[in-house]
Amino acid sequence: MFLKSKLSKRFLPITLVSALAIGSLTWSTTNEDALAKEKSQKSPEIRNVIFLIGDGMGVSYTSAYRYLKDNPATSVAERTEFDKYLVGQQMTYPEDSAQNITDSASAATAMSAGVKTYNAAIAVDNDKSEVKTVLEAAKERGKATGLVATSEITHATPASFGAHDESRKNMNSIADDYYKELINGKHKIDVLLGGGKSNFVRPDIDLTKAFKKDGYSYVTDKNQMLKDKNKQVLGLFASEGLPKMIDRPNETPSLKDMTNSAIQRLNKDKDGFFLMVEGSQVDWAGHDNDIVGAMSEMEDFEKAYKAAIEFAKKDKHTLVVATADHSTGGFSIGAKGIYNWFGEPIKAAKRTPDFMADAIVKGADVEKTLKQYIDQNKVKLTNDEIKTVSDAAKTKNVTNIDNAIEAIFDNRTNTAWTTGGHTGEDVPVYAYGPYKERFAGQVDNTDQAKIIFDLLKKR
Amino acid sequence: MFLKSKLSKRFLPITLVSALAIGSLTWSTTNEDALAKEKSQKSPEIRNVIFLIGDGMGVSYTSAYRYLKDNPATSVAERTEFDKYLVGQQMTYPEDSAQNITDSASAATAMSAGVKTYNAAIAVDNDKSEVKTVLEAAKERGKATGLVATSEITHATPASFGAHDESRKNMNSIADDYYKELINGKHKIDVLLGGGKSNFVRPDIDLTKAFKKDGYSYVTDKNQMLKDKNKQVLGLFASEGLPKMIDRPNETPSLKDMTNSAIQRLNKDKDGFFLMVEGSQVDWAGHDNDIVGAMSEMEDFEKAYKAAIEFAKKDKHTLVVATADHSTGGFSIGAKGIYNWFGEPIKAAKRTPDFMADAIVKGADVEKTLKQYIDQNKVKLTNDEIKTVSDAAKTKNVTNIDNAIEAIFDNRTNTAWTTGGHTGEDVPVYAYGPYKERFAGQVDNTDQAKIIFDLLKKR
Repeated sequence: MFLKSKLSKRFLPITLVSALAIGSLTWSTTNEDALAKEKSQKSPEIRNVIFLIGDGMGVSYTSAYRYLKDNPATSVAERTEFDKYLVGQQMTYPEDSAQNITDSASAATAMSAGVKTYNAAIAVDNDKSEVKTVLEAAKERGKATGLVATSEITHATPASFGAHDESRKNMNSIADDYYKELINGKHKIDVLLGGGKSNFVRPDIDLTKAFKKDGYSYVTDKNQMLKDKNKQVLGLFASEGLPKMIDRPNETPSLKDMTNSAIQRLNKDKDGFFLMVEGSQVDWAGHDNDIVGAMSEMEDFEKAYKAAIEFAKKDKHTLVVATADHSTGGFSIGAKGIYNWFGEPIKAAKRTPDFMADAIVKGADVEKTLKQYIDQNKVKLTNDEIKTVSDAAKTKNVTNIDNAIEAIFDNRTNTAWTTGGHTGEDVPVYAYGPYKERFAGQVDNTDQAKIIFDLLKKR
Repeated sequence: MFLKSKLSKRFLPITLVSALAIGSLTWSTTNEDALAKEKSQKSPEIRNVIFLIGDGMGVSYTSAYRYLKDNPATSVAERTEFDKYLVGQQMTYPEDSAQNITDSASAATAMSAGVKTYNAAIAVDNDKSEVKTVLEAAKERGKATGLVATSEITHATPASFGAHDESRKNMNSIADDYYKELINGKHKIDVLLGGGKSNFVRPDIDLTKAFKKDGYSYVTDKNQMLKDKNKQVLGLFASEGLPKMIDRPNETPSLKDMTNSAIQRLNKDKDGFFLMVEGSQVDWAGHDNDIVGAMSEMEDFEKAYKAAIEFAKKDKHTLVVATADHSTGGFSIGAKGIYNWFGEPIKAAKRTPDFMADAIVKGADVEKTLKQYIDQNKVKLTNDEIKTVSDAAKTKNVTNIDNAIEAIFDNRTNTAWTTGGHTGEDVPVYAYGPYKERFAGQVDNTDQAKIIFDLLKKR
């Protein structure tokens, strides 16, 4: 696979131009106001763009996270870091409006390249021709570039910024693209931090050695990452995805750790940088209908977002945009007609239901495991609750055990779900820094790329 | 009940002042920008405020409605009237952030009076003391005022703008308030259009006669409403709520008809006006988990919203704000892991499942009724589908029949629901006209009233 040549990387300006033309027709009034405002004012200088994607982070997730983090000593709901910078919502439909629920690949291609394409497409159009991404455009302009994720760094979302493939499933080919695809004779992604070691260290090749030969540092734990100061780095901290935040051992960096490390390296480039950061596993928890895991990953993502904002506040020339690609699981705040949703049971969890189920299926005692990882001072498990998990354990099926533990949290929090897949409602958009007004109002996911392409022309 | 005196109508400025103080602390960056922009520019003159509430209209509803209305001949999703004016989202929690799912009374009190209160409260605070509403403040300033709804006009949402009661259940008392509570010696609501005749024409009193005696017109069908030009009008078009849009007979006005009639009357006042318009039954359909009814009421509401916007565009001194009070039913676009949601089956429905179930329970033939009211050229019902309704009809229970018909639409559209109650996620906010920037970003439902109180001081 690695040696299969992809010599003619066709970047299709025609596709982009026509997409931009459609974009201008459907531009919202709010954005017209923003453009008028820009013309009437001195435009701020923009040097860096940090684009953050909370995978699966629909409005139920951002709202629930606020109630989870609420200070009970006050009567108001304290605003999250996201809340401070909400500017609007975006539509997420893929390919054609006749299909209206996207996957992460199509959504990320919309946001990276400004093109609506089929589900599973990695920065390729409906005819499978490659489309230029904002990361590539940034590199063409001499900027440093980076991808950070808690999934495999070759997973659909980061891949759609840094690779091209007809299918998200080809994660080895995507890793090859990261190494092989050059822009002006140079590697196109300077900082790669996430999971997915198994896609780089393979029977056919060890791409980590190839990267090292070309001057990249290669790091595999948090301390190595923090000590290393190289501008170019490949950091792979798990064979596949990273453990979820509350399951993570000390040696595994958080999304915030990786984000800060990426910013420090990229910021050494006098031409500025483009960085994409994904909170990958909000979505994975959503597919699993796991409210504990979902809120763990929301916290991980919020901290990374805050780190990006803090950098931008000091830097003053950094645009920070955050959004989601879609929502997942049909998660609702509220169930059974009850008008309250409780965050406290989630705070009692020291590990995800997945983690506990894994221990139990491997032979750990059910009651002991549950009481070890669910704070009994916060949630006093009933005998009935323990029995549901014990009954599930008798099947020796890890999914059954996981589902039984998740049901305890769903029942106690009044959380409900409708699907193991994605849902099609609009998702929130947050923006801070120069030109943030461009992202305001009702936008389409393709607008994200279109606006960033346009801003890249400014410097 | 009517003669029970409420002489000491206490309006509590202290509550309002303290609420405003909290509001300024939690004010979002976007709003700070808006305030700075206002200071640096010549402020536009504001004369009228039209505040529209889509009851239960969460982001799944506004997004699904867009996909329902999509033109299949184009590859893009055409924007709805709402989309053009999205400015942000609002939080909906009632009383205290320790409880986070609101009912319509508490939410409407937050939006009418700027006060967080308990569920069921009609413009009273947690201690049941009355709080001043923006409608009352507008009337104090000499403006004309109106309430329009497709529910009883005494239902929770309109009631929270025009009455005060410890419970939304007291709809007769609320009707009494509408007649009895005077501001500067005058009736405080000039235009009342909606349902709820049974709360006005009662064994103890006929309030329609009292209104007529005081100079109001009283109208009970669309033609009467259109012919009458009186500035003050009471229009009651159903004993309780109006039929849903697709079930409505010709003599029943649409929400757009009522909105236009209200605007024409109120606009005769040289001091300007405040009008609240509620699309009441998006929520009712959500409680019923009825996607056909929900989309019927979304369309009714969108047309009324468009009428308000069209007036504002001509008038140039009218602020139009639209939002929801909460979402309902845990409605998700997508189910069963399928990545598509289909609007076509909904378009095939000529009546709501409720309407069809009512006919069937009264003895109409199941297959004939279904085929009469579901366009067989658009949705070819299967024998299995007809059988599920026939089986339900054998129970002679209208709810069972209704549920069986709804299930056909849920299955064909990939719609799913989690609850018969409300859910707690943030809802969209739309604004057009002078000072629209004030409503931008992440706001709280109490901000709606706080901003309008402030704008009322400007004129």
